[in-house]
Amino acid sequence: MAESIIKNVNILTMNADKDIIEKGVVVLKDNLIHDMGNEDLLSKYPSDNIIDGKNGILIPGMINTHTHASMVVFRSLGDDVPDRLKRYIFPLEKKLVNKELVYLGAKYGIIEMLLGGVTTFTDMYFFEDEVARAAKELGVRGVLGETIINFSSPDSEEPYGGLDYCEWFIEKWKDDNLIIPAVAPHAPYTNDKHHLQLANKLSEKYDVPLMMHVAEMGYEYDQCLEEYDMTPVQYLDSIGILSERFISAHSILVSDKDIDILEKRKVGISHNVGANSKGAKGVAPITKMYQKGMKLGLGTDGPMSGNTLDIVTQMSLVGKIHKLHNKDRSLFPASEILEMATIGGARVLNMDNEIGSIEIGKKADLVLFETDSINMQPLYDYYSVLVYSSNPSNVDTVIVDGKILVKNKKLVESNIMDKVKEQLKMIKNNILEVSKEL
Amino acid sequence: MAESIIKNVNILTMNADKDIIEKGVVVLKDNLIHDMGNEDLLSKYPSDNIIDGKNGILIPGMINTHTHASMVVFRSLGDDVPDRLKRYIFPLEKKLVNKELVYLGAKYGIIEMLLGGVTTFTDMYFFEDEVARAAKELGVRGVLGETIINFSSPDSEEPYGGLDYCEWFIEKWKDDNLIIPAVAPHAPYTNDKHHLQLANKLSEKYDVPLMMHVAEMGYEYDQCLEEYDMTPVQYLDSIGILSERFISAHSILVSDKDIDILEKRKVGISHNVGANSKGAKGVAPITKMYQKGMKLGLGTDGPMSGNTLDIVTQMSLVGKIHKLHNKDRSLFPASEILEMATIGGARVLNMDNEIGSIEIGKKADLVLFETDSINMQPLYDYYSVLVYSSNPSNVDTVIVDGKILVKNKKLVESNIMDKVKEQLKMIKNNILEVSKEL
Ligand SMILES: [Zn+2]
Ligand SMILES: [Zn+2]
Repeated sequence: MAESIIKNVNILTMNADKDIIEKGVVVLKDNLIHDMGNEDLLSKYPSDNIIDGKNGILIPGMINTHTHASMVVFRSLGDDVPDRLKRYIFPLEKKLVNKELVYLGAKYGIIEMLLGGVTTFTDMYFFEDEVARAAKELGVRGVLGETIINFSSPDSEEPYGGLDYCEWFIEKWKDDNLIIPAVAPHAPYTNDKHHLQLANKLSEKYDVPLMMHVAEMGYEYDQCLEEYDMTPVQYLDSIGILSERFISAHSILVSDKDIDILEKRKVGISHNVGANSKGAKGVAPITKMYQKGMKLGLGTDGPMSGNTLDIVTQMSLVGKIHKLHNKDRSLFPASEILEMATIGGARVLNMDNEIGSIEIGKKADLVLFETDSINMQPLYDYYSVLVYSSNPSNVDTVIVDGKILVKNKKLVESNIMDKVKEQLKMIKNNILEVSKEL
Repeated sequence: MAESIIKNVNILTMNADKDIIEKGVVVLKDNLIHDMGNEDLLSKYPSDNIIDGKNGILIPGMINTHTHASMVVFRSLGDDVPDRLKRYIFPLEKKLVNKELVYLGAKYGIIEMLLGGVTTFTDMYFFEDEVARAAKELGVRGVLGETIINFSSPDSEEPYGGLDYCEWFIEKWKDDNLIIPAVAPHAPYTNDKHHLQLANKLSEKYDVPLMMHVAEMGYEYDQCLEEYDMTPVQYLDSIGILSERFISAHSILVSDKDIDILEKRKVGISHNVGANSKGAKGVAPITKMYQKGMKLGLGTDGPMSGNTLDIVTQMSLVGKIHKLHNKDRSLFPASEILEMATIGGARVLNMDNEIGSIEIGKKADLVLFETDSINMQPLYDYYSVLVYSSNPSNVDTVIVDGKILVKNKKLVESNIMDKVKEQLKMIKNNILEVSKEL
């Protein structure tokens, strides 16, 4: 395969020195970044296959470290219901979630992520094989965890049936180039010790990620203290399941001691600032985590919690909420926030050798922001414009694993997009009817 | 002038009952909403001039109750500088702000607001006559206050020279149909008692708004306590300048007693949640203000503070930050947030008889959101989708005073847009050079 070239872009490499290359050139070969530098490269690689970036901003593909993409079919339902997970979402899922819905929702959600510049997403849900199928068809990178939970769930009559499903699922996808299967016990309060340890063993056996909602809910925290006299993090550590394979979503109710444990165990932290604030759950202490150099990335959570699935929207919130919470406007300059959205997320997934920055030899996962829209100018500081002015509609081109999936702000395979939209319309009324009974 | 018709829209009227009309029709005549209702109206008004809303969401034009639009020329400069106003912004303005810059910046900023669905904006800056000229040319509604400040400023060698400029400015614009001139003393800490009272007299003489930054800064609060043994609000009340003409921007550092005073004096509150959080200034206690039924609207502040000028982005932040701050996810359902963005803002400006809701007899200031983009579906709840999923790029059509200014997401007068962008490019390098010396 001949090289293809991206020229006339301002490259935010997100490498260790956060180098910026203005009027830069990136050379792609197969699915990799083959070369990069300034315009001199153009003479070295005389390719016909040239993308003119029109003075846009090229960044590494953004990484969503926690979501439940299929839940997009329920978006905008019951946004302000108190105790919503138990009183509203679980019953809704019990009645409606099936294979077809998971597949359709995943397709819709993944398209939304791609259009917003997400090239790798981390998911946990039921029928995760359907999410993998959708991801594979669309060509996005996915770290996909099958949910394990202590009650009868949409894909398993028996409590904890997810464990068997999960092993089958791992076997099926373990050698895929885009899909990384994972084990996803729902939370400390919806799994007992025995099954958490089984889940961890499964993750160890196949060397795949173990992902969980941790220290997210007030009742989770209280229950842990009452039953074990430990915080959720201390409890999980005491049963031996924290490791560098572990991805801890939320991690809001964590003490300094808990942070030390998470650091020591090399746990990756998925920070879901939008969902956490809309759900009034609190502010995760990421300032300390960042200062310690822990693995820290951004997530959207499911679209019933955070509504949109792009990471662009999360970036501005990270700045605003943590500056406000810490009463310090100089905290988290925009470049550090883009770091969390890209290479930070890659570290969380232990994939920073492959993705998360624009460097020679890494996978060609790239996002081009146009700078022509009114909100993108003036452009004195690339990071500030991305973090505080841009929105997902400014994403022009998205490349995953060397393939162009989004061009001129549209999914290249537009027929998939139309079909999915049509299918969502067809199931909408049924969902609305069921939701009214809750 | 014959009627024109908007059909096939879901109308969020934002009237007192928050009525929603699905598959609705709005009939415009001259600059007013002449009639409205369901599709039966189409036979009553056989017009050739029909806009097909394509099942979009029609809302009242959004109202930005506080900004400094011209500062958009400085956007993305020095976002994370501590003590930024005094150390960075004032010196920058001193060196660079002149008539031409204010006019150009206002044009750019107003276009951005229009594209994002703002039909009325409230501004305070220097050379405010240039802002009025830009607003008038573009056809937007503006409440525009000339800045009065205790030091030599870009448009006045003498301290407090803004007072004379302001009277001249009011005389010039007081009978305009779109522009409402106003008096804008900068803040309690940049004006002495005597000049604040003169500013209030001027506002009283012409019955125009008096707008000020109030209780925004920690040092402002401390200084007030030290000098007068009063909070900023109590001080302003003690010198007799709070009234229903008063628009109080920010109002963060206010006690319960202060809120009672603001309520009693019928002061309008401009809540700038994005700028306040990014600037780490604190959370204005709008829950109490809303419960008291006070006049409460949203603002962006200047684009060096809040970066973008649309109100859409502010809405989601209002929900997230106040739910989080009050630890209550049921606080401020989305419909109440859209209320602040529309009729609430109109109340702040004492214009709620004319604008802020879609009702017969009101000015035809309307915004149509398309619902075709991926983030706008599924659509179970119009308010939730607008507040938590939409972004400014979903604004399709904007009508101000009966005239279509934005259509298919583009400024109808596209030549103005191109020219302004070109001019901004030309001054960018000079601004960058000067900023580096600060
Ligand atoms: Zn989650
Ligand atoms: Zn301001």
